[in-house]
Amino acid sequence: MTAKNHLPEFPLTATARSSGRPTARHLAEQLGVATSTVTRAFDADSRISAKLRSRILALADELGYRPNAIARSLNRRRTGIVALVMGDMSNPFYPAVLEAFSQQLRASGQQLLLFVVPAGADADTLMPQVLQYQVDGIVVTAAKLSSHMSELCARQGVALVFLNRRVEDPTVWSVCCDNQRMAAAVADYLVQQNRHACAFISGDLQSSTTADRLLGFEQGLAVHGQRVVAQCHGGYSYEGGRAAAAQLFCAGQPAIDAVFCANDQMALGVLSYLRLNTSLRVPEDVAVVGFDDICAASYPEHALTTVHQPIEQMIACVIRLLGEGHPPGNTPALCEIPGHLVLRATA
Amino acid sequence: MTAKNHLPEFPLTATARSSGRPTARHLAEQLGVATSTVTRAFDADSRISAKLRSRILALADELGYRPNAIARSLNRRRTGIVALVMGDMSNPFYPAVLEAFSQQLRASGQQLLLFVVPAGADADTLMPQVLQYQVDGIVVTAAKLSSHMSELCARQGVALVFLNRRVEDPTVWSVCCDNQRMAAAVADYLVQQNRHACAFISGDLQSSTTADRLLGFEQGLAVHGQRVVAQCHGGYSYEGGRAAAAQLFCAGQPAIDAVFCANDQMALGVLSYLRLNTSLRVPEDVAVVGFDDICAASYPEHALTTVHQPIEQMIACVIRLLGEGHPPGNTPALCEIPGHLVLRATA
Repeated sequence: MTAKNHLPEFPLTATARSSGRPTARHLAEQLGVATSTVTRAFDADSRISAKLRSRILALADELGYRPNAIARSLNRRRTGIVALVMGDMSNPFYPAVLEAFSQQLRASGQQLLLFVVPAGADADTLMPQVLQYQVDGIVVTAAKLSSHMSELCARQGVALVFLNRRVEDPTVWSVCCDNQRMAAAVADYLVQQNRHACAFISGDLQSSTTADRLLGFEQGLAVHGQRVVAQCHGGYSYEGGRAAAAQLFCAGQPAIDAVFCANDQMALGVLSYLRLNTSLRVPEDVAVVGFDDICAASYPEHALTTVHQPIEQMIACVIRLLGEGHPPGNTPALCEIPGHLVLRATA
Repeated sequence: MTAKNHLPEFPLTATARSSGRPTARHLAEQLGVATSTVTRAFDADSRISAKLRSRILALADELGYRPNAIARSLNRRRTGIVALVMGDMSNPFYPAVLEAFSQQLRASGQQLLLFVVPAGADADTLMPQVLQYQVDGIVVTAAKLSSHMSELCARQGVALVFLNRRVEDPTVWSVCCDNQRMAAAVADYLVQQNRHACAFISGDLQSSTTADRLLGFEQGLAVHGQRVVAQCHGGYSYEGGRAAAAQLFCAGQPAIDAVFCANDQMALGVLSYLRLNTSLRVPEDVAVVGFDDICAASYPEHALTTVHQPIEQMIACVIRLLGEGHPPGNTPALCEIPGHLVLRATA
């Protein structure tokens, strides 16, 4: 049996047969027109009369017929589907990204196919499956991807964009908030508030996001002759932030008067530890600053000072870059969208 | 131009042409075999020799060729894509649902196409677009859908399952936690704790979830000769829960010694209001109980007593029902998965 025989009258009746869904052919027969005329009625740039189109659309609605978006888009050499490969749903920043991404994609006539990377795995494990869906583009966020896999995407002509991760791979785009500059601004603000012993709580030490925020924080402190006096790993989680605070503020440690966390989730864990497990007051004794500006950061019981990441603008940039395909030249292509410091009660 | 001419050699080179992706035909030509032999090498139940298959797979990997999952699945009359139509990403319960659903779908060889309903809209606005993607099934959660649209799905032979929403429509399945029974258990527990003036904070008054939780709570209190002494609307949000608490505990109101909230997000808002805006102690003066058991409910600063919803089991049930198609008989088909009460510090 050849591949051609697999496809008797695709796309008009391929999925219809078994399910009994109405097809363009059913409509054509009832109206006594060609099947292609029915399909044309759903094309904006069609050359059929308004009267005929309205007759076709009316019958389509009556029968519950819808054109096959996947088959039609394959005809146009595009599926209209963009894959989002996401590594972390527990940090509320990413559901917010997901919602904004889904809304903006649909507004641009595309749709989101979601792949969640299992905890502990990296995106590589999913890529062969992602590519089988013939997606027009792939966005990877909060997950690692090997250069082998990004080369595979390049060979297959699939646009690849990293969101909130910067990679040194010249074949892909990265879209981030200006992490380094904003972390330096946090350092500058803390020094202005007469903080002299600043600690840093990192997320994933391999992630560019943590690396850039630490580098910027160090540079911002250095301008004032200060350095990071203590550093702990928090793994981007609330529990990790709490555990890191327990290390930073356990008996016998030199006094720390400010903590900058690589994300808000960890900062909420630090606030919880300081309030429930120590007598230290926030911000009088210890200032706490996060990164992301998730919803909970603005809750009055937290009132967390943090860096706002401009999700909507970052995603608008991602969608524009997906359309442009691969970056020009042979240097890593990074789009940095400016964030801003949100001053609340914790610093 | 007819529909047939639209599809020169679909599926093997449809998307390949413009993007320059390698195709089964490229492989076939290099290996001097039929294109259908190459496609067969990717079928588990293939009748070609292991030696030939390994040669084909090796070249495929070298060239970065992957079979077209969408075209292949259309041949099998199924796309392997399930649509999730989701109304609320701000409540952490739903990102948890999304993650579990995505993982379990992939484990069953299917993939998740996500549609987020814009705030204020209902799922109807998206359905024509959802159906165009020829999905095998549609799961609707935290969103309303008209019976007109569920009939449309039935006409098109697309399985439709409501998650965490119960509908009176005999053509669709609903999968919920046993909301009514668990709400009655909350009432029973509060009365045992000598609470005599219980209030209820509702989510969306039109949603079956709030209706069932209120009904169960009322019935549970009635067993002990009590009733709900006050009721406020909180719209399922933290801010809504805070505002509802402000109404329930403002000066001049009769004393309330227990508040049951239709979800955890609202309960966190109530806790915030009681702690920051009143002198009332939790649980000494007021008991607070939520529903869902989101991550934040277990944070030590909240330690919220709540009802645990068994997300993994609920989703396993949804995926099983998607495979079964439409419910038998002509009565609304509801699957209720037992939840359980999680006792923490707030009640």
